[in-house]
Amino acid sequence: MPRSSPIVVLDSGLGGLTVVRALRAAMPGENILYFGDTARLPYGSKTEVTVSAFVQQIIAYLRPYAPKHIVIGCNTATALALDAARVAFPDLSISGVIEPGANAAIAAVGRKIVAKVGVIATEATIRSKAYDQAIHRRREHVQLFLRATPLLAPIIEEGRLESDPLVQLALAQYLQPLIEHEIDVLLLGCTHYPVYRELIEKLAGSSIAVIDSARQCAEDVARRLRSAGLASPVASPNLAGDDGYLRCFVTDDPARFQRLAPRFLGVEIAAPQWVAPEDLYELQPVNRARMSVPA
Amino acid sequence: MPRSSPIVVLDSGLGGLTVVRALRAAMPGENILYFGDTARLPYGSKTEVTVSAFVQQIIAYLRPYAPKHIVIGCNTATALALDAARVAFPDLSISGVIEPGANAAIAAVGRKIVAKVGVIATEATIRSKAYDQAIHRRREHVQLFLRATPLLAPIIEEGRLESDPLVQLALAQYLQPLIEHEIDVLLLGCTHYPVYRELIEKLAGSSIAVIDSARQCAEDVARRLRSAGLASPVASPNLAGDDGYLRCFVTDDPARFQRLAPRFLGVEIAAPQWVAPEDLYELQPVNRARMSVPA
Repeated sequence: MPRSSPIVVLDSGLGGLTVVRALRAAMPGENILYFGDTARLPYGSKTEVTVSAFVQQIIAYLRPYAPKHIVIGCNTATALALDAARVAFPDLSISGVIEPGANAAIAAVGRKIVAKVGVIATEATIRSKAYDQAIHRRREHVQLFLRATPLLAPIIEEGRLESDPLVQLALAQYLQPLIEHEIDVLLLGCTHYPVYRELIEKLAGSSIAVIDSARQCAEDVARRLRSAGLASPVASPNLAGDDGYLRCFVTDDPARFQRLAPRFLGVEIAAPQWVAPEDLYELQPVNRARMSVPA
Repeated sequence: MPRSSPIVVLDSGLGGLTVVRALRAAMPGENILYFGDTARLPYGSKTEVTVSAFVQQIIAYLRPYAPKHIVIGCNTATALALDAARVAFPDLSISGVIEPGANAAIAAVGRKIVAKVGVIATEATIRSKAYDQAIHRRREHVQLFLRATPLLAPIIEEGRLESDPLVQLALAQYLQPLIEHEIDVLLLGCTHYPVYRELIEKLAGSSIAVIDSARQCAEDVARRLRSAGLASPVASPNLAGDDGYLRCFVTDDPARFQRLAPRFLGVEIAAPQWVAPEDLYELQPVNRARMSVPA
């Protein structure tokens, strides 16, 4: 596996670009393929069966590019689809955003005897109990306060700024119960949310440590590549060398994606390539037997 | 075509159930098949090429039930896909929600010389200019004020009530510029929005007539069926007779759909049938040649 092989980052839409931003800051020499499944976004209100099929379709589609690592840059997709993807593609190196976020949350809690951790995320991520499991596997005595915040991603995608009263009200409503529980750590369990990190930190106050799963994920990928001897030569922004490329794939409206991307990535991107959704379904159908239908 | 043949109502998710509710109030004897494309919702931020493929896939899927009429119960899908669906299925009777809404808006304007009409809808509906065309085809001298309101559908799907400060703030922000323009008529250009009709009417004030595209659409379908001699015998809630059935199809999470449906429909529903998305793509692929990619 050559060190110039690309890293794949996949997401339902734009949010995973915050992972790309953190990856490029940590490892500017890496080549990155980004897949935004914009025809089928959002994933946050959908089931495990459906999201798992979507994720495996995208991995199967990008597999011919021989990626050295695949990052599921979306909390919902990590929660619902990471384990199954590892089983489906045992020869590929795949990681997500939840384990690194849980690690950082536990580290931030420090030596407190009764630690309280709050998590905000999509409906599907909360329902999956992925953060409960990841955190309690590391440390038993943590009180968890989970909050589904389904409007935050649409509010961010509408392009609203932190100064907007609606942004402030939505965040205040969602965070208030967590603050009242006197949490020590607030985990941003959706890769969209770092866009409002400053306002979230202000509302949370100085006694709550805010952990950004996108940044933690990027650091985790950097560690994995270094320990496997697969990191690209230019590993630090302080060293001279060529920056890696970023190539984007989307399943709907390349122009809209290109327009909105800088809000998440911090810089402009080249025109994304469009992928027809039916090409994805051909690679991996939805698992019919597992969709549960109420009686 | 027997009069007991079903009416198909299709939508990206739950919103079209407000059309079903109005249809059942107007014509309780009709049998209805409802399709909610919940694995691929929302349509409101997606392109014409993509949404048009989705709509034709759903029509092709339900065609074997020999529907006597098909209603695109979603403004975005009507705006982006109705014309192409009529071309693709010339033997089927298909209508949407935009023409009936535009008719009602013009009727409400009355004989005012300079009429001002406001429309709130999804990003894709506004961008499509479907309401501009539908209204100006009927009457040239109408000043139109269009406003994309992308958060309203997610806010409604989160289950927030009209008493919620965030609901009030979002509606106030979106409606304020239209109210300042002194519009005469406000058209609710998304089938989700009737859920907040009372609050919208209160914010708009008594000088603005609020038109609900879902209700107008149902009346339009009733007229079409009666003039074609296809209306079911039980045409009024005052007459005795059997109520028609309602059978729902969804592409993701039947349980979630069943749980949220009463908010839109007013009554409980039976368990929906799940349809695998790849069965839809097999019926009608996305038109690759028409997806425009920025240079």
